Amino acid sequence: MTAKIISRHAQAVEASRRSSIASFMVMEIMRAAADRERAGASIVHMEVGQPGTPAPGAAREAVLTAIAQSTLGYTLALGLPLLRERIAQLYHHWYGVTIAPERVVVTTGSSGAFVLAFLTLFDAGARVGLTSPGYPCYRHILTALDCEKALIEIGPETGWMPDIAHIEAAGHLDGLLLASPANPTGTMLTPERLSDITRWCAERGVAFISDEIYHGLTYGAPAATALQFCDDAFVINSFSKYFSMTGWRVGWMVVPERFVRVVERIAQNLFIAPPAVSQIAAIGAFDGMDELERNRAVYAANRALLLNELPKAGFEVFAPADGAFYLYADVSALTSDSAALARRILDEAGVAVTPGLDFDAERGHRFLRFSYAGTTQAIAEAARRLKAWRGA
Amino acid sequence: MTAKIISRHAQAVEASRRSSIASFMVMEIMRAAADRERAGASIVHMEVGQPGTPAPGAAREAVLTAIAQSTLGYTLALGLPLLRERIAQLYHHWYGVTIAPERVVVTTGSSGAFVLAFLTLFDAGARVGLTSPGYPCYRHILTALDCEKALIEIGPETGWMPDIAHIEAAGHLDGLLLASPANPTGTMLTPERLSDITRWCAERGVAFISDEIYHGLTYGAPAATALQFCDDAFVINSFSKYFSMTGWRVGWMVVPERFVRVVERIAQNLFIAPPAVSQIAAIGAFDGMDELERNRAVYAANRALLLNELPKAGFEVFAPADGAFYLYADVSALTSDSAALARRILDEAGVAVTPGLDFDAERGHRFLRFSYAGTTQAIAEAARRLKAWRGA
Repeated sequence: MTAKIISRHAQAVEASRRSSIASFMVMEIMRAAADRERAGASIVHMEVGQPGTPAPGAAREAVLTAIAQSTLGYTLALGLPLLRERIAQLYHHWYGVTIAPERVVVTTGSSGAFVLAFLTLFDAGARVGLTSPGYPCYRHILTALDCEKALIEIGPETGWMPDIAHIEAAGHLDGLLLASPANPTGTMLTPERLSDITRWCAERGVAFISDEIYHGLTYGAPAATALQFCDDAFVINSFSKYFSMTGWRVGWMVVPERFVRVVERIAQNLFIAPPAVSQIAAIGAFDGMDELERNRAVYAANRALLLNELPKAGFEVFAPADGAFYLYADVSALTSDSAALARRILDEAGVAVTPGLDFDAERGHRFLRFSYAGTTQAIAEAARRLKAWRGA
Repeated sequence: MTAKIISRHAQAVEASRRSSIASFMVMEIMRAAADRERAGASIVHMEVGQPGTPAPGAAREAVLTAIAQSTLGYTLALGLPLLRERIAQLYHHWYGVTIAPERVVVTTGSSGAFVLAFLTLFDAGARVGLTSPGYPCYRHILTALDCEKALIEIGPETGWMPDIAHIEAAGHLDGLLLASPANPTGTMLTPERLSDITRWCAERGVAFISDEIYHGLTYGAPAATALQFCDDAFVINSFSKYFSMTGWRVGWMVVPERFVRVVERIAQNLFIAPPAVSQIAAIGAFDGMDELERNRAVYAANRALLLNELPKAGFEVFAPADGAFYLYADVSALTSDSAALARRILDEAGVAVTPGLDFDAERGHRFLRFSYAGTTQAIAEAARRLKAWRGA
């Protein structure tokens, strides 16, 4: 081994300004929970928004076959043609909407889709409307890409979803990103409001990005896609949630036809291609929809259980969670420091939950997010622990 | 299905300026080749820099076990701890260098590592030195992230590698990115020159990024890592090349200790985590090094075959390719339009090769890149076709 140079004249390289973003707190909680597990503690996981189930059997079988038969090299940047076709068919199956497979871009999770959509649509300084509370990575990716965030504060007055008046109050926007069902609240836009918003954006040349990652996971009326109302939206979805494939990192985006080549060039350069093995699993997952519907029935049971049990542990006020697998609880009666509360619940009750600060820097100190995507057994155990911890 | 709104007042959203980057041409050639194959043509692939072999058997077995036993959910953002340890050990095994596993960041291919490194180190407007010819995605990712490229033109005079004089002639630099062995030439920096360059960067506070993706694939002296000479470099590598796992999209980066948390925050927000299944495969790959050494022996045979046969087809002048699996051929005697030549070779000879324009916008019109990462049978067939096409 050659000796390393210790130069007296060395100047330390510093981190960029745009890299000074907040951590994705749920990942920090996940790490703290993993540390406690390594130390021997029993932890029920309600912190991360991921199913406790593996990819459907049909997806796993497709992988076993592919591993035996294929080199699993790079795919085309926009994804395997068969996967793009199956995704296009899903729009017909779920919504009765016809989408050309050529408009479907397979991505490395919805995370990859956000990076692609933001770079495609927004230059540095562009102003993008986001709800608060909302998925924190939206804000932080935009910061890293030098865009401005226009936070649209939503609350119980409008069912934790924005209306046109909220959006107009945000001032000039180059883009608007909304999720329905939403994270962390599980709340949904009505089809009428989604239609109004797509029209409002189209009339003003505001790029509309519809995060539909929780579609398929609804417990009342199904969710509407922005593509029912306009062809000009960027619609983002993923195999992580309904399809129960978080760790596989495969998602997709439907883009207007005139943007396909632009997105393809960025995808070629920034990603080369999404993971081949995960794309094969995703193709297989479409043959496992029965299993996925059974998973949804479990979430529905978990949701009912928590709506019944959590109030007994003193967690009473929730946003109306019609979709996703989250309850967003107002804990202002218990604390004004939700991060400290989450830490205490982890250490003392053995339940990992996420403080609202991740989703809403202003008001999140009085909210906690509970993910109920685990097994019903785990969720029941969490409820039992939380009640015991509160002496209920 | 609800009728879509056709608003008379619609304003078309336009693509951002920073998204107007060139396509990664090798992906375009790959698509043209795939189109011809679908139309029934037989094509020998020398266009893409990827092995013709699958992941090593030990990697594939690790996946089969994991699929049977694990839900394969999100991992921690920096990757599976065991994988980070195995990667750290590789630095001892290959170079005799001791690296703390905490400095290892598992990434979604080296592509993910470049995005992370650039965002961590460079603000908009930062000026980054790159060689020309060089891997085109460096330039295009930097463009998408609003950074400036300082192209350092290299050629036969200095063995297709830059020296300090070249780098100083590039003017002010915030960062410098070099690959050794390099793409498209396969040429290497001597340890002495790499040491000089790391010292030059350290003395000036220039962030040094060492792309070591072709390490392990050398046919003379082994490659030196920048970490032999300094701890302050960002060192990027991947399981795609030596480990024969392109489509799995798993790579890594070794960063200075003080940057680990910064990189982790960006990784959490932009990627969440690299694919779990691919990380498991990568852990397994370390038990398949014998198989990988056999792959390397195939590349060595392919390289010898091409160096002997290609001159018979009129491709005579190559950069001194001591590593990677590329030959970069000067075709100025044949054409001043390498893209048209590559297209003719694809259509008429059934061999997919990449025009130099991808790597060097100025001089690439008189170069072609031949990848010899396929089987010896395929490479021999390509040589036969090229000779026949040229009437040799």
